[in-house]
Amino acid sequence: MAESLLRNPPDRSSTQSLEKSATAKYSVSPDTLRKAIGQLKKDIAADRIIRDVGECTNKSSTAWSPAPEETDCPSFIVYPISTLEVSKIAKVCHELGIPMLPYSGGTSLEGSLAMTTKGGCCIDFKLMDRVIGVNKKDMDVVVQPGVDYMELNQTLAEQNLFFPPDPGPGAKIGGMIAQGCSGTNAYRYGPMKEWVLGLTVVLADGTIIKTRHRPRKSSAGYDLTQLIVGSEGTLGIVTEASLKLTSKPQNVRVAVVAFPSIPNAVDSAIKVVQEDLPVAALELLDDFTMKAVNEAGYCEKQYAETATLFLKFSGYSDRMVQEIIGKVMDIAKANNCSSFEISKTEREASDLWQARKTALWSVLALRRKPEDKFLSSDAAVPISRLGDLIEATQADIKESGVLGSCIGHVGDGNFHAGILYDPQDEKIARTIIQNVQRRAVKMKGTVSGEHGIGLENRDALTEELGQQSIDTMRKVKAALDPKNLLNPDKIFHQKWVAKDSWIPFSSSASSKGYQDQDIVQDIKSTLGWS
Amino acid sequence: MAESLLRNPPDRSSTQSLEKSATAKYSVSPDTLRKAIGQLKKDIAADRIIRDVGECTNKSSTAWSPAPEETDCPSFIVYPISTLEVSKIAKVCHELGIPMLPYSGGTSLEGSLAMTTKGGCCIDFKLMDRVIGVNKKDMDVVVQPGVDYMELNQTLAEQNLFFPPDPGPGAKIGGMIAQGCSGTNAYRYGPMKEWVLGLTVVLADGTIIKTRHRPRKSSAGYDLTQLIVGSEGTLGIVTEASLKLTSKPQNVRVAVVAFPSIPNAVDSAIKVVQEDLPVAALELLDDFTMKAVNEAGYCEKQYAETATLFLKFSGYSDRMVQEIIGKVMDIAKANNCSSFEISKTEREASDLWQARKTALWSVLALRRKPEDKFLSSDAAVPISRLGDLIEATQADIKESGVLGSCIGHVGDGNFHAGILYDPQDEKIARTIIQNVQRRAVKMKGTVSGEHGIGLENRDALTEELGQQSIDTMRKVKAALDPKNLLNPDKIFHQKWVAKDSWIPFSSSASSKGYQDQDIVQDIKSTLGWS
Repeated sequence: MAESLLRNPPDRSSTQSLEKSATAKYSVSPDTLRKAIGQLKKDIAADRIIRDVGECTNKSSTAWSPAPEETDCPSFIVYPISTLEVSKIAKVCHELGIPMLPYSGGTSLEGSLAMTTKGGCCIDFKLMDRVIGVNKKDMDVVVQPGVDYMELNQTLAEQNLFFPPDPGPGAKIGGMIAQGCSGTNAYRYGPMKEWVLGLTVVLADGTIIKTRHRPRKSSAGYDLTQLIVGSEGTLGIVTEASLKLTSKPQNVRVAVVAFPSIPNAVDSAIKVVQEDLPVAALELLDDFTMKAVNEAGYCEKQYAETATLFLKFSGYSDRMVQEIIGKVMDIAKANNCSSFEISKTEREASDLWQARKTALWSVLALRRKPEDKFLSSDAAVPISRLGDLIEATQADIKESGVLGSCIGHVGDGNFHAGILYDPQDEKIARTIIQNVQRRAVKMKGTVSGEHGIGLENRDALTEELGQQSIDTMRKVKAALDPKNLLNPDKIFHQKWVAKDSWIPFSSSASSKGYQDQDIVQDIKSTLGWS
Repeated sequence: MAESLLRNPPDRSSTQSLEKSATAKYSVSPDTLRKAIGQLKKDIAADRIIRDVGECTNKSSTAWSPAPEETDCPSFIVYPISTLEVSKIAKVCHELGIPMLPYSGGTSLEGSLAMTTKGGCCIDFKLMDRVIGVNKKDMDVVVQPGVDYMELNQTLAEQNLFFPPDPGPGAKIGGMIAQGCSGTNAYRYGPMKEWVLGLTVVLADGTIIKTRHRPRKSSAGYDLTQLIVGSEGTLGIVTEASLKLTSKPQNVRVAVVAFPSIPNAVDSAIKVVQEDLPVAALELLDDFTMKAVNEAGYCEKQYAETATLFLKFSGYSDRMVQEIIGKVMDIAKANNCSSFEISKTEREASDLWQARKTALWSVLALRRKPEDKFLSSDAAVPISRLGDLIEATQADIKESGVLGSCIGHVGDGNFHAGILYDPQDEKIARTIIQNVQRRAVKMKGTVSGEHGIGLENRDALTEELGQQSIDTMRKVKAALDPKNLLNPDKIFHQKWVAKDSWIPFSSSASSKGYQDQDIVQDIKSTLGWS
């Protein structure tokens, strides 16, 4: 007995280092996959278990967040239609040691969806896209993870309700929860985490839990809701969410305010924040981005190519909104704004906001050649340091010779440097991003305001919070997912080995591209699939 | 090896049941305590290690939240002055198996401070009460856990800043974080959890971690901040906190609106919420409470003894505030309000709000005799159900014959039933509270909106979220505190045994009360203390 205790000494520490972690062992061999699919087919219709290689690749690698390697993708995809089915999938994968990847909109960045285990099960929530119930009197809604937030808002608008988080178009609730997203509305309304009331979650071993029902606030035990929000699918699979709502903004106005320099614009923004003016959104676009907006031609209007604030206003009465606009105008004038344009109609508001909305695509259109790549940062800093950070980044970009834009959710101290570069300049681009992150940490900020960590920012996260904090996260992960099956290898480094990995492409085939039907057929017959 | 694995099979599940939990073994014998104190004295001045029995009892048992037994208290108290000292204390306690109880204001309810292990180390943050830095331009502040929130707001007011959470007077930041508190300002500003940017935390084994720096928002890894907020001192000890601030409310007005019935008042409140009117606070007092307010005499004014809404307004300009008041008045009139009184001066606003502020003390003053006890509920429900819940509770109270009040943070769907009862009617009182909790759960609410779980609500929490959710919390607890040393036995049941418990009172001595100096002297000499 003493000897056995020595061999497996009880773990008494509060953290878990990478060194002391057990190595997770995955099985994604054809045999195991065949077994898994056989078991799943007992409960899940065969046409909802998909094994198309192209589809599998698309789940893990996107134009905006390519996986490191083409083979970093799931082996098969299941489309569940209920929490019970998701639990069944998790139980089978847990038993057989198959990695799992929850998937909804696929708009995430930072390699959050890359399946570096070279195989596993993708759980796609495409069919779980129902709005289960709108509770107008409670100002909340219960939804499935496959619901598109923009479509949700169209439905809600009919009842004068509004769900504020606004990440990239195409994002769905499941991924928005996983990534702890935000967007331009976060300044007024707070990020996603403030809009989730309760979740139904399937844990790694298939256990189904409810983190909360639908109270507006709760102090009932550990906040499992917030532990899941932002965990990037590594701690549990969300199968249902109760979301807080507010009323649809009224009397919406948009202002576009041009300044001679970034510090003038940022100082104005700080003043707006400090005076607690009820502004609905507060965004900064730098001179390069404004030039991109003009050149891309998504907007009819031509803007001054200088640091510009985009503000949104809304309120109970137009008179109140006018009063706030007046106060912001005073602040902008005191900071030498060169122009202050305000929408007069709803149409004009929408047109002016269009420039902000299309800013990223406008910047991407400035690629010098089609092979050019795009890399972006997502740091957030205490607002007083935002001007310094943007200025230092602009200097880095100028010196490096690559093209770069700065777009800021300035009210939150969050900004994105977007770098366009020739693939051979990758090191230069990565150095710029790394500089942003290091400066942000020195300024007591964060490397990620809203995009998450994924594969890309794991080392930066350690620089931000220190090894002990990461080892605390690793301890939590090991507790809830001891076999390390849920979206492995994300947020922090983990130890794992895949036995008989099912790699869908041979190295020679890989160069031919994944649409090669021969290879697909070859794999299908290897796996005994029709 | 195979045998040893059989004896200690690897844990592969995502949850941990009570049955499968290892039994925590505590050592609070005089020998162990002497050893611990000897080790602590190497780094911590002897006069900051206190062994007074009266003091020890006060840490765990208060008039508003008495411990089940007089002996449920720590064996000694340490007053650290730095994070490093707290880490040292945790390391010593971790090594020797001594339970730890972090303590700041001591205003919590639900038995959160009761030390049922009958001994252990209380870490009192009385000396860590510094405001480390106010960052006016960033709208944040860095504080130690012993800071009183009301004093903090006095300091902040000089710079026109404001920290909104407002639990019971005397509460301090450490406890406010531990309990995930809120208060009357939560409707406008959100609960405590939304005002914590980042924490320095000492884990059970003494590891020091930083959960975040000071960005306004972050998606950088698991949200350890929110895991700690509301964990009632069971997952880590907060030694420093960065808190978000806003600007001091301007043009504050208070309205007192009387209604013929609870439904009229609640319907008005729902309408205010649904129209997203920027109201600063929205509180409901029932007829019994208004009677208590009149009889207690804390306020000069006499109020109508009927369901009454207390509203606070504030805003950038008085004209804006007036406009909101007008809208609320329209709503109240449409719901047959019998009076609508609005403050004209700052002094009047403060006087009117006084009735809300003293409501709990006014109710307590209605005890029929000094031995009468007080018990309160803290459920929160989706707002459309709040009226039903309050009406059912009032009916229960009326039928039972005990005295009872209903006070609601109605904007959040949260309300407190406060029951005054003769000790022999304890079962009746507890049944009323249990009924509130069960109804709240059926209405998709929570048993605790802001007071937490502690000892009192552990079974109710299981009824609310189900055994699997509790077992998930237990798994997280076991990961971060494997020896189960941090405020044991709170939130959910745990398995533990105390070896040679140091019980400061013999059963016969106990009846004489803890101020008996002979007993104190006796214990002191037993422990070899001067």
